[in-house]
This record gives sequence, C-alpha cells and structure tokens, in this order.
Amino acid sequence: MKTSDLLLEQAKLLEPELIELRRDLHRHPELSFQESRTAGIVARFLQGLGLEVREQVGGFGVVADLRGASEGPTVALRADMDALPITEETGLDYASGNPGVMHACGHDIHTSVLLGAARLLASRKAELRGTVRFLFQSAEEILAGANTMIERGVMDGVDEIYGLHNLPFYPAGTIGLKSGVLMGSIDRLEIRVDGKGGHGGYPETCIDPIVAASAVVAGLQSAVSREAPPTKGVVVSIGTIHGGTANNIIPDFVELTGTVRNLDPEWRETMPETIERIVSRICEAYRCRGTVRYIRQVPPVWNDTDLTGRFAELADRMLGSGKRAEPVPMTYGEDFAEYLRFAKGCFFWLGSGPSENAEQAAGLHSPRFNPDEGCLAVGAALLAGVALDRLA
Amino acid sequence: MKTSDLLLEQAKLLEPELIELRRDLHRHPELSFQESRTAGIVARFLQGLGLEVREQVGGFGVVADLRGASEGPTVALRADMDALPITEETGLDYASGNPGVMHACGHDIHTSVLLGAARLLASRKAELRGTVRFLFQSAEEILAGANTMIERGVMDGVDEIYGLHNLPFYPAGTIGLKSGVLMGSIDRLEIRVDGKGGHGGYPETCIDPIVAASAVVAGLQSAVSREAPPTKGVVVSIGTIHGGTANNIIPDFVELTGTVRNLDPEWRETMPETIERIVSRICEAYRCRGTVRYIRQVPPVWNDTDLTGRFAELADRMLGSGKRAEPVPMTYGEDFAEYLRFAKGCFFWLGSGPSENAEQAAGLHSPRFNPDEGCLAVGAALLAGVALDRLA
Amino acid sequence: MKTSDLLLEQAKLLEPELIELRRDLHRHPELSFQESRTAGIVARFLQGLGLEVREQVGGFGVVADLRGASEGPTVALRADMDALPITEETGLDYASGNPGVMHACGHDIHTSVLLGAARLLASRKAELRGTVRFLFQSAEEILAGANTMIERGVMDGVDEIYGLHNLPFYPAGTIGLKSGVLMGSIDRLEIRVDGKGGHGGYPETCIDPIVAASAVVAGLQSAVSREAPPTKGVVVSIGTIHGGTANNIIPDFVELTGTVRNLDPEWRETMPETIERIVSRICEAYRCRGTVRYIRQVPPVWNDTDLTGRFAELADRMLGSGKRAEPVPMTYGEDFAEYLRFAKGCFFWLGSGPSENAEQAAGLHSPRFNPDEGCLAVGAALLAGVALDRLA
Amino acid sequence: MKTSDLLLEQAKLLEPELIELRRDLHRHPELSFQESRTAGIVARFLQGLGLEVREQVGGFGVVADLRGASEGPTVALRADMDALPITEETGLDYASGNPGVMHACGHDIHTSVLLGAARLLASRKAELRGTVRFLFQSAEEILAGANTMIERGVMDGVDEIYGLHNLPFYPAGTIGLKSGVLMGSIDRLEIRVDGKGGHGGYPETCIDPIVAASAVVAGLQSAVSREAPPTKGVVVSIGTIHGGTANNIIPDFVELTGTVRNLDPEWRETMPETIERIVSRICEAYRCRGTVRYIRQVPPVWNDTDLTGRFAELADRMLGSGKRAEPVPMTYGEDFAEYLRFAKGCFFWLGSGPSENAEQAAGLHSPRFNPDEGCLAVGAALLAGVALDRLA
Repeated sequence: MKTSDLLLEQAKLLEPELIELRRDLHRHPELSFQESRTAGIVARFLQGLGLEVREQVGGFGVVADLRGASEGPTVALRADMDALPITEETGLDYASGNPGVMHACGHDIHTSVLLGAARLLASRKAELRGTVRFLFQSAEEILAGANTMIERGVMDGVDEIYGLHNLPFYPAGTIGLKSGVLMGSIDRLEIRVDGKGGHGGYPETCIDPIVAASAVVAGLQSAVSREAPPTKGVVVSIGTIHGGTANNIIPDFVELTGTVRNLDPEWRETMPETIERIVSRICEAYRCRGTVRYIRQVPPVWNDTDLTGRFAELADRMLGSGKRAEPVPMTYGEDFAEYLRFAKGCFFWLGSGPSENAEQAAGLHSPRFNPDEGCLAVGAALLAGVALDRLA
Repeated sequence: MKTSDLLLEQAKLLEPELIELRRDLHRHPELSFQESRTAGIVARFLQGLGLEVREQVGGFGVVADLRGASEGPTVALRADMDALPITEETGLDYASGNPGVMHACGHDIHTSVLLGAARLLASRKAELRGTVRFLFQSAEEILAGANTMIERGVMDGVDEIYGLHNLPFYPAGTIGLKSGVLMGSIDRLEIRVDGKGGHGGYPETCIDPIVAASAVVAGLQSAVSREAPPTKGVVVSIGTIHGGTANNIIPDFVELTGTVRNLDPEWRETMPETIERIVSRICEAYRCRGTVRYIRQVPPVWNDTDLTGRFAELADRMLGSGKRAEPVPMTYGEDFAEYLRFAKGCFFWLGSGPSENAEQAAGLHSPRFNPDEGCLAVGAALLAGVALDRLA
Repeated sequence: MKTSDLLLEQAKLLEPELIELRRDLHRHPELSFQESRTAGIVARFLQGLGLEVREQVGGFGVVADLRGASEGPTVALRADMDALPITEETGLDYASGNPGVMHACGHDIHTSVLLGAARLLASRKAELRGTVRFLFQSAEEILAGANTMIERGVMDGVDEIYGLHNLPFYPAGTIGLKSGVLMGSIDRLEIRVDGKGGHGGYPETCIDPIVAASAVVAGLQSAVSREAPPTKGVVVSIGTIHGGTANNIIPDFVELTGTVRNLDPEWRETMPETIERIVSRICEAYRCRGTVRYIRQVPPVWNDTDLTGRFAELADRMLGSGKRAEPVPMTYGEDFAEYLRFAKGCFFWLGSGPSENAEQAAGLHSPRFNPDEGCLAVGAALLAGVALDRLA
Repeated sequence: MKTSDLLLEQAKLLEPELIELRRDLHRHPELSFQESRTAGIVARFLQGLGLEVREQVGGFGVVADLRGASEGPTVALRADMDALPITEETGLDYASGNPGVMHACGHDIHTSVLLGAARLLASRKAELRGTVRFLFQSAEEILAGANTMIERGVMDGVDEIYGLHNLPFYPAGTIGLKSGVLMGSIDRLEIRVDGKGGHGGYPETCIDPIVAASAVVAGLQSAVSREAPPTKGVVVSIGTIHGGTANNIIPDFVELTGTVRNLDPEWRETMPETIERIVSRICEAYRCRGTVRYIRQVPPVWNDTDLTGRFAELADRMLGSGKRAEPVPMTYGEDFAEYLRFAKGCFFWLGSGPSENAEQAAGLHSPRFNPDEGCLAVGAALLAGVALDRLA
C-alpha cells in the first residue's frame, strides 16, 4: 500500500479533532484583518507539532516551515482564516456567537483542513526531502491578505504552492480540478460622472449627471455583449450608484463602483481602455466629465498543466475514480492567484456538499451555508498527499 | 362706411366664383414643382384682371404687379399652389381625380383666396398709392418654392409681405394671429453611423453600428429633455433609420434622418453643435464614427410686431370682435419665412373649420381634410384689406 | 393726484425702516417651520399698527386683519418668512449669522415688503371698504406652509389674494406680470426598482436593479421628448439615485426621487399614468419590479385674467410705463398656488436686480444672492396699492 | 500495419485527382439550391465507383450507399456543396469564373474530400460489415439543405454520422475535435415595433417606434450581459433595422431582424421568452406594440462523447500525436446539427491553413479565403478511416 493510500485513512482518524476545531472556529468568526483569535489557535496548534511559527505575518498571518530529513524543494500549502459580515441563519448549535459575522465562505473549513494536513505531514517528517511551508493568511475576502504576506517574504524560496476552496455544489468526497484558468481575474471599477447641479425645474441651466450615468450603465453592457468574445467569461457589474441629495435638485455628480471579471488574461488587458472609452465618451455626449479608476485586484487562478495533471492522478488514486469533476471556470475571485505570480501551483475545489442534490445546497456567502464536515478529512489528506508526492 | 368694411361684403359676392375655382383646383391637384395646370389657371385669371403676368418664376411660380394710381410702397401678397402625395378619402363629388395626390393642406384654398383678393384690389386700382405684388409659388410642401422665386428677384423692392394658411381647428370666419414667432424653424438632420460589419455570431470581431445608432437615438432625447428650455418648443424627431441586409450579418453602417424644430431662433443656433456632440461622442463610445449633416431648411415665421398690431386692428374691424384668437406657436414649417428674410410682414391662420367642434375637424395632411369654404371670402377680404390699409 | 400715485412716494419714506428690518431678518435666517424669531418680529410690528394678531397659525404663521371703515370684501396679502439651508457667500456686513442658513431666496424681502404695505394701509384704514388680511407664512421652501395655514382657516371669507416673489433678473423698480400660468405645478416622484441582489461575478443568478434603473432614467426622457407637447413646459428631473453597498455585490434595489413640472394643468393630469407606465414596463423588461409614488405637491400659480389686467393698469400708473414685462411661465414652484384654490388672485415678480445687466445677477438660491433693496418700497407700494384699489 | 495507417498513404496517392476535382469545383461555384453542375459531377464520380446514386434528393442533394460484404450498421458521411454570394479576390488562376459567387467557405474542399473517401472505401467494400452512406447536400449556407434531405428519408436506418468543416486557422495536417458542443445553435429573430406615425414636428400626437426600437436594441444587450451565464457563449446580434420613409414623418413601425447563438442547449430554451419579455415590455413602456417571431434554425453541433473519443484515438493514430487540438466551441452555425437529431455522430474541424501563422490566414467567408490543399488527402483518409473503424 502506497503512502498516499494510507493518508486518507489516517485523516479520517483525525476527523473528530478537526470537526471540534472547525466548530470552535465557526462559533468565533472574525472579519478580515481581525483574525487574532483564529491565528492564535493556529499558531498554538502548529507549535504543538514542534514547528517554529511566525505570527502576524501580514495582518494576522501565520507561517511555519516543516523541514524534511534532507534538502529539497519547498512546497507551500495555504489556507485562509477570515469570515464575512453576514448574520448566520443556520440555527446550528455551534452557529456564530459573533453577531453579524459568519464563516459563510467556509474558511473555518480551510483552516482546519490545513491544520489536519500539518499533523499528517509532521508525523512523516523523516520521509520528506525538502520543506513544507504552511501559510495561514488573513483577509482573503477583501483580496488583501495574500499580498500582505507576500510582501513579508513568505514566497521566497517556494517552488510550488497548493490550496483549495470548499464548494457545496460538489458532494463531500469529491473534488473539482482543471488546468489553466480555474477562477477569473477580478478588477475594481470606480467611476465618477461630473455634471453641473442646479434647480430640477431648470434642467437647461444644469448638466445632469444622473442621465449621463444611466447612459454609462447602459453603455457598459455593450462591453460584454458586443466587445467581448462570448466564451471568455467577461463580466462587468456595477454594484453601487449614488448621486443626489434632494428630489428637486439636479446633483453635481454621481459615483458608481463595479467589478470586472475575465477568464482570459489577454482579454483582461483590454478592459481598462474599453471602460475608459465608454465612460468618457458617453459622459461627453451628455456634457459631463467621466473619470474612471480601474484597479486590478487579483489575476486569474491559473493552474499549471503539469502539476495539475500529477495532482489529478494522485487524487484519483486517493479518492477512487469518478470522484473528480472538471469544472467550468468561475468568476469568483481568489487571492491565491497572487501566490501564483511567484510560483507555479494548483488550486482545487473541495466538495463540501451533501451526497444528494448538492447543486441545491445553500451556496457560498449564504446565511444558510452549512458544509458537510466529511470534507475535512478529504481535504487534509489531499493537501498532505500532494506535499508528500512532491517531496517524497 | 370705411373701405375695409365694404370689402368683406364684396368678397362674399365673389364667393360662388371662388368656390367654383377652388373645387376645380381641388379636383386637379398637382405635386410640388408640377403645378403647370394650376399656374395656367392663375395666370389667365390675373391676365383677365388686366395685369401683366410673369410665369414659370421658380418652378411654376406666377407673379403679377398691380400698380396703383400713384407711387408708393410695394406690398406683396403670397399664396402657394402645390398638393400632397396623399390619397383622398373625403368622398366629395369634387374629390381629387388625380390618384394618390390631394389638396390635403388646402393650398387650393390659398390660391383661390389670393385670386379673390386680386379681383377685389384690381377694382380699386385708383385708390392705391403704390404697388400690390401677387406671388403664387410652387412647392411649399417641400419648403423649396419660396427660395426659387426669391432667386428670381420677386422680393426686389417689396416693403411688406402678407400671407395666410388655413387652419381647420378654427371656425371659418375667425383667424389666429400673433406677433413674434408664429411657426417654428425647420432643419433637417442626416446622420450616418459607421461601424465595421461582419458575422453576427462573432460580435467581438465587428463594430456594431446598430447598437451605436440606437444609443444615438436615445441620446438625442436628452437634447430636448435636458438641454432645451422646456418652453422653447424644441423638437428633435428621427424619421428614418436604416441599416443592414441580413439578420445574421452585422452591417457596416446605419443611416438616420430627422427633423429639428425650434420656436426660438437663438436656441436654434445651438442645435447643430448639440446634435454633433451627442452623435459623435456616443458613436465613439461604441467604437463607431458618427457623422452629421445639419441642414437649415426654413427659419421661423416671425411676425413683425407693428404690422401685426395694425393687422389685428384691421381684422377686428372687418370680422367683428371676438373673431381673433392668439395661437400658441406651432412647430409646422412654412417657407413664407424665407420671404421674411427680405421684408417684414405678417402671416396668419385663416380659420377653415366648422362652426362647432372645430377642434375635432380632420387636420391638415389628413386624407379626410375638408375645409369650410366659408373661409374663402374672409381670406380674400383680409388680404385685400391689408394691402388697401397699407397703400391707401 | 390719485391715492395710488402717492403710495410709492410714501413707501419710499419708509425705505430706511424697511431696509433695517430686512437686514435684521437677513442676519437671522430661520429654516422652514423654525421661523420663531421672524414671526415674533412680524407679530410685534403688526401689533404696533394696532392690529389684532394671531400667531402660530400653521407652524409660525402670523395672521392679522385690518378692518376698514365699512363692510366690504376681504383682500388677502401674503408673504413667506423661511430661509434656506445654504451657506452665505456674499461677504455683506449683515450676512447670515446662522451658519449654513441663508435668506438666499429673499423671503426676508417679502416679509419686509408686506410689513411696509401693512404700515401704508393701516394709515388709510378710514378709506377702506372691507378688510385686508395679512398672511405671513412658514415653510414655503418645502411647499408646506400654505396648506398648514389654510387648514387653520385663513382663507375663510377671502375674496381675492395677492402676493409677490422677488426676481433678481429684473431690475428693481420693475415687475413681471402675466395672466394665466405664471409658475408651473410641482409634483414629487419616488421610484423604487426591486431586483434580486447577489454576487457581482454571477449576474445570471441575480436580477440587476441598477441596469433597470438606468433604463428607467433613459425612458423617462421620452416622457418629455416624445409624449409632452413641446411648448407645455413639461419637466421630469431625477434628483437622486441610490443603490448598492459594495462594488462587487449586485444590490437588491435602487431608489430614485425626482420632480415633475408642468405649465399646463391638463397635461399634468396625464403624468402619473405616463410615469407609472414607463417605470413599471421597463422594470418588467429587465425582470425587476418598479413602483412609483407620484405625489402632487403644488398646482400651477394661475393668475386671474381680470384681476391681472386691473393690476397691470395699476402698476403702469404707479411705476410708469415700460416698467412691466410679461415673463414666460417658469417652472419654479410656489405654494401661493394653494391659496388660489380658494380665491382668485394675482402673483407677480418683483424686480430685485441691479439696473444694469440684471440678467447676470446671482440667482435665487445662490450663495451669492444679493437683491437690490430698492425693491422694498416698490413692493410695499404695489401690495398696498392693489388692496386700496380693490377696497376703495 | 493497420488498415488505418495505410489509408493516409493511399489518400495521398489520390491527391492530384482531388486537387484537380476541387479546382474545377472552385472555378464553377454555385449558390445554395443551385448546385446542379456540382451535383452532376458528384453523381458521375460515385456512379464511376459502381454505386447506385440517387439525385435531386432535397434540392440537388446526392445520396449513394456503399454496401459491405456482410450486414451491419449504417454509417453516414456527409459533405456540403454550395458556394457564397461573394466576389473572389484571391487572384488564383482557378478563381471563380462565376461573377459574385465564390467557394469562400471551402465546400469545394468538403465535396472533394468526401469523393476521395468514397474512392478509398469503394476499394475496401469487401472489408465492410454494414453500409456507408454518402450524403452530398445542397444549401448548407442557408441552413436549409440538411432538412430537405432528411425529409426525403436519408437518415432512415443511419446509426452514426460523421462530417467535417475545413478551418484555415489550423494548419493542414491537423484537426480540431471536442466532445459535447462544437458549434452553437442558431436562431433567427424577427421583431416588429408598431407605433403610430405622424408629423415629425408634433411628436405628442404620434407614438414613436424608432425611439422604442432603439430602446429595444439597448435592452437586448442585457440579455447577454446580465441574464446569460458569462461562459455559455450566448450571442444576440441585430442585423437589420429599418423604419421610416421621410425625415420629418414619424413612421408607423420599425422592423428588426437578428440572430441568437447559444453554446448551451438548455440556455437556448430560455431565449424565446427572454427576448419576448424584453421586446414587448420595452415597447409598452414607450406606448408601442412589440412582436417577436423567434425561429429556431439549427441546434448546436453536439458530438457524442464515446464516438468522439474513438475518433480521437483513430486520428491520433493516423496523423500522429500533437496533430489534434481541442477547440473552444464556436458560434458559427452548421446544419450538420440537423442530422444529429436522428443519429449520434461526430463533426470535426479539418485544418486547412498554412503550416506557419495559420491564425493569420484569411478566414471563412473572406474574399481572399485560400485553403491549403494539403488538407484534401487528410480529410479523405479520416472520413474513410472512421467508416472502416466502425464497420470493420
């Protein structure tokens, strides 16, 4: 029996501990860059494994290296720790005790899974030729934590990096994996439309920014419907529009913010100019001035073909055949992509749904999100497995 | 009894002749610049009055001067002779015998009225100090006939000019008169939106001019709703939009034409730039090129305040009080405005509707337009009256 | 010399007192329904004239009747007292001492003018056959004060009512007057567009209310540009648009408010249905639900033709010819219109601009609004004059 | 050496004949349903192979069965024969001699390839257990020919069907193959927007269908940008918009046509209702009536997973590894999809581009389209190969 085959069995033995750990985290969710309690638990757990732990590495980031018996490459494994500003509605007895904050994206799962993997790997220290680096990051939800860790040097010397996100639309015990783009790039739009305010009864003495902003919103639809290739997963969504203080006063300006998603890195390059053109020209048509700030947030999560192929074989071996699906790329963002700028790697969807009708499970960010804890052992085994596979 | 008081009585004596004349013209309507039969009748009538007549003065225009007993100013009286490409539906026994052509705007009335006025004035030649010039023009419906006559010199030496248009929404026996703007300016828009055609399944390889042209049409609404003062009678209507040859081919271009109306000459000056800005900038936003030809057609019909005041007094005297209304300015066009560039004058609405519920009468350009012939004598008397008033 | 001729001279003798009064009010502006200090000054002034004064009649409204020597009709004269939430930028030594509040609409002028008229009339009590009722109202700026007074019975027994608003675009010493509509009706729009919020990267799982609301704003332009007659002064302005809390979350709803103005009462009747149709149908097209609250605020200020004609003759006599202009109707609102539902009357523009280039003066509601105090005596004389004219 | 390995060599021996054949067809292109000359050549060729040939089976369709030595399944191989209304600009010495008509889509290639396959298979008649049915269809370009053949029964008894389309963006010697959707569904939109025409100067008396149609075009963008999942390849293109006869007359109606493409059959099902909702509701908002005819043209080309897998293995064996790419699905339409409603099958892209910079080659439907004739032997071998593979 190969090592990788044993891992899943061993992980299952850890399940009660991982569930307890996860439920504790779930009961005490912490918002982005406020993960002090969570980070403390992580640090103590890793110290308990005999690892040297660095804390407060980019927010409340925690980093620890497990050095193998001999020299070799460094493989990083990453989890995220923050929760969301959502009021939990699950009714679970371990539901959030922190009003208005909830682990509605399952980062409690991710943290527990990686701690489980750390325990599995720590007991195999002698087999490792190289180093496993555990990265527990702050503030993934606001796409900020990865970069703050990277700035503190956590990717120095890393050869490969792996990570996961749970997905309730796949049953626990399965995974979603594909090479190339797994999740799209995410950018932020900030648009301001300046007109000239005045009396609502005298539009001819004003320059109406609300009419101009509305035309801009309409115009931006065509960036998707006419300019983007229909299969490239381009999304432009305006999330906020705000202008004006009184019903009978034409305001001076309107502000909008939005998000731009692309599955195709090349196409992403053209977006700032496209958006700028549409906004500025339409505003001029309506006598306004339109300004755009186009802020690149995260690149796409791009899985290396070779590493993904190897991981697929490993997963098939560990989980059995028929447990791995190839997802379509998704337009969620994930700042795991930032690490991939410094090392190749692979990110996968860890099924966390019920065994039946998973596609109807409450989704990520739902106040009723309730993942199947059966995924904990599977995730821990796979992360440990891939590190062993690379460093054995 | 003053001369002007007699005129209406004398005009009523002419009524049978004017009705016969008008019904003959009605039965034989002729389109713009094709008024040969009508012009022939006019010329023979005027020759019968002993006037020297010039024919084919700008299309089929007819001009004749009635010189008074002594020197004095020249007062021009103008009528238009052309019919419309409309199929008559009145069922009258003197309905159009020319299929698809109809005097649906009542120019048959105008021609008959002015011939009546000519007869009234010819018999008073000895009283006149100055000259009355009769102008019967072609092609008012296409706003072309006035200029073709003016180019032939018909306004040389003219001091004042008067004219009328029948209006079925006022009862016969009444008129509508106001100083300043009576009818708005009319301009023509020609817009072309150039994109880049191609396969309808591959919009990203094309530049779609139909989407851009649609945004232009939407944008032009704001020229009226946001830029124009709400009481200035600004109208921008797109009358045609044409683009494309096949459902699955994005075309290279779209063409639009439209009309712009203004009651305010000053505001009219701003329109070309406004339209140009809206069209070109919106097209740029959608990656197209928009070009605009803005063609000034006719200025507003602008009644001189003093002449209108004098005419109002005369009309009140002739028709009795309570027979004169002050209309709101209208956005019909009338190439009488062209003559007013060369001499001051006054244009009025001659009521041609029924005595009751005139506001429900079939309107101008309706296939059921059927004016009350009681207006013939009134119009003839008023035109003769104003000439006598100025030259007595 | 007629009484009315003397009035202007006598009013000019009051000028120093009126200026002092007005500057005191200007230095102490009070917002709508907070006019306690102003009302106190008004009440004491009227009591000083020997009148019986009622206070707090609808907010801080002040009412006093001046009963003449004999029975006769009741003529009401009205002024408004409230200021605006604007920070004064005039630099005058009597500028507002109340931070963020300013008499930027000149209601200090109006109050002073009416107090001046009260003094002029009080000294002529013996000449009056009937009663003059002085109405000083709260909260005109929010179009609420007139109705609160009316509910308290101030229009009971009133036969005619007169009022004025200063206008800096006419020089002091002149007035603007017209019969029929002087100022348009004002209505308030509240629109809500309900969609279904969600993740900005997954528009297909949401119903985007921002795109729908933008189409609604565009669609509302056509209510003016296509549905309204071009000379009826119809205005639809959206003053506020608010939706969304985060750039990457499609919100559940968007809220808009706006104002609708009409110079034509008949056309006003069609607006609620027009707006409702446009909003609801466009929202349905975009899968949203659009709801409209259409709140009628004030009817148009409609001047009685006879009273206006008489007032015009009086004003010409008092001010000299050439001092009276006929304004185009304006789309400002004025709750004087509410009183006109109970008695006929006349409202006029009191010129308060400089003698030269008045059209360039800082306008109403400008932080640099600075009326020419020469208007005080003129306004007092005219209001006193019209009451005398009606009750002599 | 396996049969399949020999086929490519044998096909190459046929190359001179296939090139001559193809150039003759290229010089004499025929439009859809006018392919009489082409069909005659095809029929004589097949008769020369000893096959019984049916002609004029749906337009100029040609059908022939090659019956093997023993009973077995029926495998259909299909080619299309029509050309396009495009003026050739290649300057080749065998360029089109039929002005305005060109084989710009390479159906001359497809016809020659299938004739080559027929010759290869005819010589192996003894090896076949079952029947090969050769289908040469009319009028693929107008998506009509397949159905006319099917109505004549050509799919009766067919178990599997194969076909190809050349693609100049892949070098000759390679193919593009994927299971599932290879090419999208194609539907046709016909939209009519009815308003109420009238005088362009009096929009308030009309219901403007041009403004409504423009809002419809804008609204349809959101079907793609907001309603469709961003990776499903949904396209809605309006190809024609036509309304109006004169610049100053608001027309009664506007007509639009368009095309709708979907890579996802499920999503296609929702489109008629989506389009209907957008068109009808927006038209109602603008007081118009919008009517939609949604005409399903062709379903997606959906390759059977098992057959595609087998064909991939065969192709790899015949062409060598690295000669097969997996294309993204395309939004071209192809009426091969119609046959797939009656039997499972597989359709592939036959590389017809140069060996270098194929991605810059003149594309399908270009007047400079010029495929590499090296693809002829490859295509013939693959079609013969797959039939042999299935019937050996």
